[in-house]
Amino acid sequence: MSKYISIENLKFALFELLESDKLFALDHYKDLDKDSVNIMMDAIKDYADKSMYPVFKEMDQQPAVYEDGKIIVHPAIGRFMKDAGENGWIGPTFSYEDGGMQLPHVFHTAASHIMECANNNMTGYTGLTGGAANLIATYGTSTLKEMYVSNMLEGKWAGTMCLTEPQAGSSLSDIITSASPQTDGSYKIKGHKIFISGGDHEYSENFIHLVLARIEGAPLGTKGISLFAVPKNRITDNSGLEYNDVLTAGEFQKMGQKGYCTTHLVFGENDDCYGHLVGAENQGLKNMFQMMNGARIDVGMTAASVATAAFYASLQYAQERSQGRRILPGGVKNVEAQQTSIINHPDVKRMLLLQKAVTEGSIALLLQASLYHDLSHHSSEEDKEKYHLLLELLTPIAKTYPSEMGRVSISNGLQILGGYGFCTEFSLEQYYRDIRIMSLYEGTTGIQSLDLLGRKVVMKNGETMKLLTKEIIASIAAASNYDDLKPYADKLKSASKNLEQVVMHLLQFAMSGNHERYIADATIFMEMMSNVVIAWQWLKMATTAKTALVTGNTIQTSEFYESKIHTMRFFFKYELAKNNGFKETLMDPDSLTILEDKKSVLA
Amino acid sequence: MSKYISIENLKFALFELLESDKLFALDHYKDLDKDSVNIMMDAIKDYADKSMYPVFKEMDQQPAVYEDGKIIVHPAIGRFMKDAGENGWIGPTFSYEDGGMQLPHVFHTAASHIMECANNNMTGYTGLTGGAANLIATYGTSTLKEMYVSNMLEGKWAGTMCLTEPQAGSSLSDIITSASPQTDGSYKIKGHKIFISGGDHEYSENFIHLVLARIEGAPLGTKGISLFAVPKNRITDNSGLEYNDVLTAGEFQKMGQKGYCTTHLVFGENDDCYGHLVGAENQGLKNMFQMMNGARIDVGMTAASVATAAFYASLQYAQERSQGRRILPGGVKNVEAQQTSIINHPDVKRMLLLQKAVTEGSIALLLQASLYHDLSHHSSEEDKEKYHLLLELLTPIAKTYPSEMGRVSISNGLQILGGYGFCTEFSLEQYYRDIRIMSLYEGTTGIQSLDLLGRKVVMKNGETMKLLTKEIIASIAAASNYDDLKPYADKLKSASKNLEQVVMHLLQFAMSGNHERYIADATIFMEMMSNVVIAWQWLKMATTAKTALVTGNTIQTSEFYESKIHTMRFFFKYELAKNNGFKETLMDPDSLTILEDKKSVLA
Repeated sequence: MSKYISIENLKFALFELLESDKLFALDHYKDLDKDSVNIMMDAIKDYADKSMYPVFKEMDQQPAVYEDGKIIVHPAIGRFMKDAGENGWIGPTFSYEDGGMQLPHVFHTAASHIMECANNNMTGYTGLTGGAANLIATYGTSTLKEMYVSNMLEGKWAGTMCLTEPQAGSSLSDIITSASPQTDGSYKIKGHKIFISGGDHEYSENFIHLVLARIEGAPLGTKGISLFAVPKNRITDNSGLEYNDVLTAGEFQKMGQKGYCTTHLVFGENDDCYGHLVGAENQGLKNMFQMMNGARIDVGMTAASVATAAFYASLQYAQERSQGRRILPGGVKNVEAQQTSIINHPDVKRMLLLQKAVTEGSIALLLQASLYHDLSHHSSEEDKEKYHLLLELLTPIAKTYPSEMGRVSISNGLQILGGYGFCTEFSLEQYYRDIRIMSLYEGTTGIQSLDLLGRKVVMKNGETMKLLTKEIIASIAAASNYDDLKPYADKLKSASKNLEQVVMHLLQFAMSGNHERYIADATIFMEMMSNVVIAWQWLKMATTAKTALVTGNTIQTSEFYESKIHTMRFFFKYELAKNNGFKETLMDPDSLTILEDKKSVLA
Repeated sequence: MSKYISIENLKFALFELLESDKLFALDHYKDLDKDSVNIMMDAIKDYADKSMYPVFKEMDQQPAVYEDGKIIVHPAIGRFMKDAGENGWIGPTFSYEDGGMQLPHVFHTAASHIMECANNNMTGYTGLTGGAANLIATYGTSTLKEMYVSNMLEGKWAGTMCLTEPQAGSSLSDIITSASPQTDGSYKIKGHKIFISGGDHEYSENFIHLVLARIEGAPLGTKGISLFAVPKNRITDNSGLEYNDVLTAGEFQKMGQKGYCTTHLVFGENDDCYGHLVGAENQGLKNMFQMMNGARIDVGMTAASVATAAFYASLQYAQERSQGRRILPGGVKNVEAQQTSIINHPDVKRMLLLQKAVTEGSIALLLQASLYHDLSHHSSEEDKEKYHLLLELLTPIAKTYPSEMGRVSISNGLQILGGYGFCTEFSLEQYYRDIRIMSLYEGTTGIQSLDLLGRKVVMKNGETMKLLTKEIIASIAAASNYDDLKPYADKLKSASKNLEQVVMHLLQFAMSGNHERYIADATIFMEMMSNVVIAWQWLKMATTAKTALVTGNTIQTSEFYESKIHTMRFFFKYELAKNNGFKETLMDPDSLTILEDKKSVLA
């Protein structure tokens, strides 16, 4: 089997970089220790090797399809739901009370990484089930929890999130699915939901859909949206199941992630669909954000993981494939010499280092965000707020950077294989297709960028941004202790200042009331800020590696640590440098994309 | 039928920007005029509408396959070869003597653009046939010309180029296909050739393969490569055809361009394959470059055309799809208002303008290069050399920029469609898959970049670069006549100076003998230089548009010209600005990708 992940890198990030085992000192996690989480991760790696990676290609070749009103998926999905349920992998972060093992999110995210590197077409089924169960556990009544949660965590019943409607994709304000209150406290549900991931298949006897809908008479816009748990089959008085009028109307055929079904569901076509309110009336979108924020981290990690698997596939090819010769002084080649491994060509080495820089930088950020999640719930009261705000600020970046740059990373991996990269015989082209969805679902890159610049950057009057700057400054200080890291610490300081300058420049538009202009280039701002955040992660990794080398307190080979420092330098030279361009664009006075700028610029 | 091309833009580029009709004053083109080429282009557009665009999706769904030793392709290929042959579209640039109509290449490239926007899976078959016939017409003996050329131009026989072997892809030095001289002057050919585009199918009764091979005893490396015309079926003494032992061993299944077959051919498995030398012994690679250079322009135009079709598909969607509302002063939205067309969102407008900037910039450059081709053959002796050198310098950019940035452009188009962009029901995902091959074949981006920095930039001791700078300076001077274009002319001047500075910096490595370091970041240099060249094209287009508006000498609407100026500003703000980052990277003293830099940076 080909290498598809670096467990060494994962453990470096968890234990050396983030010292996540310190969490076990907190009361909530006191029953866990480093050994127990390592055993769990080893078990997952073993499972991924045996049951996930081997069906990766097969699931692409036998895509989910709609036949006679049913969705047919690969049988591996059925086994996976069952096994994940039995092993406690669906809701490991749940409290003991709710049937979980109180695992920190940082380890759950790490576990997902392993599985998603092996096969990114499978984990959505369990991820959504866990997320939906969590929403019910958090906001649902005790009756609702009893009805659904345990069956979901055991992998018997599946969960989904139903937001999008044909007329309401990015614009959730425009949801029209309706909910009519019934005398028994339930609601009658009616409406179409599209692009529902994991929405139906034969391997789960029931599906609990978390549906955004509008109670009759509710206010317009997002303020009138409520959240409902709507089962495909409702529980009868004698604890049996009867069909709840949730019709599967179709399956969207896609260019990638073909094993992961994407359904069109019709609720209440025969006026016989009922659901229960989850949380308060008209608070649906706010509550749904718990699941959406988790799902955004999941999407980011899926993207980082697909790109990781692609990186190792192209690395292996670059090591094995011989082609051409090194260029000798004077620009000549010795044609009598044997061909060299292509990894020795600078351009190929560059493409490999780019992949390493993007994927390991993404993984570090995603685990960092997940650790903040844990700390926002279980550290001291004062720190909770801080970590909550940091997580809020970093979430759009943690979703977007791996999705956007992971795609670029995979394209570089494919490029290394030359013509073979375009052929279905090799895996790169599937990774290339699979990752393309990541910058679309759970809020497109445009939506994430509006969230970042329009909401998060200005949150708490800019105090949230200051918290991040403080973290970055601390990392700069730590790196500056080493002479050979100091120049990079200085570069990050300057990049961080440039970012601040851009924010101040843009804020002038907002302060003068021109919000449209303020957020017009939010996507470019996302690229710029992401580079600062990933550079910060790389500086932290390099400092950790340097400390290990200097102190001799190592758990990896010295090559491992040296390569971390080398890749940090690579990221600064090739990626962070791009911020010079982004800054010029963002500071440019020309306004070119707003309606009034020109009526017909696309004539 | 949806719009897939702008004929207005094509005619603007041909007649207003490049004044290509001035060619008709040259003796070689004296029988042509503007009307006659317009009639030809209109006929091609009509054909593309009726016979090419309608089968675009079908060819993807019914890919070329290998069955019982044969390649099965879509029947539209058979009709297309026949029709193209009858209409004279296979070799329109050929001299009257060789059966052509002495059409300038700039119009042939324009004609290809129309067809490739309609369906990029078809033109390779005729393009290779014309290119192969041209190689025979240029370097072959009169006997060889008589044997093959007219059947090829008539679309009865097809042509291919056979370079790649399993051990020799980017490294053509390592070709081992052998050619043994026979007493009758022919050569016995033996070897495997892979990735042969359009290599076999049932709709051509014969295939003339242009094969690179090594005559027994030839020198090692590229100096020992000769070129042969090797038919699938050889002509017998009584003018019949008999099988020439060219076996079709397989078809590479690909992620895109599925209608365009990619074959594995085995020459002489039964020791019964014969071919004829084309040109002198050991001059094969040099001669093959005639066809390769033409093919590089073709690939560039195919990429630009796929991206153009994708642009119009996403533009139409953006105009028709309503979603969300504009952001009002204070950052609020009026949820009571109707949803707006998504084209009114700045981020969507940005993605559309990016596509327009990339595709129209690419088309302008490709037509410019093709015009240089014509001028290099048919202008005054002194100018011939100048245009030849400019063409040589621009060819790697004209191939690479549309391929690389066309992919980015299409990705932005797909993004505009949101989740639908990822679904096979819409065409964006096919464009996204189809274009991925463009940066791989005819020399990967890495190879093109080595060619640009390693050969072209230093060609004639830098005189070639100076010729380009002179052209750019002339365009800057023309633009500077208009107050509102002057700031952009200045920006281009500064960008051009920065490029020079980078070249001088890098040359120090070459001059000190460290050629590997000189070319290590050639791909980044390609990105930087491409942006200067495309900015030059945009400045020229804006100047042409401005002149039309000022003089009133217009053939398009004023919106058309205004949008050219607007898109120029867009390119400078969003794309040319990136050169700030590329410059920093290229001037950075850190060397990170050369073998000796670190043995195990990928640990």
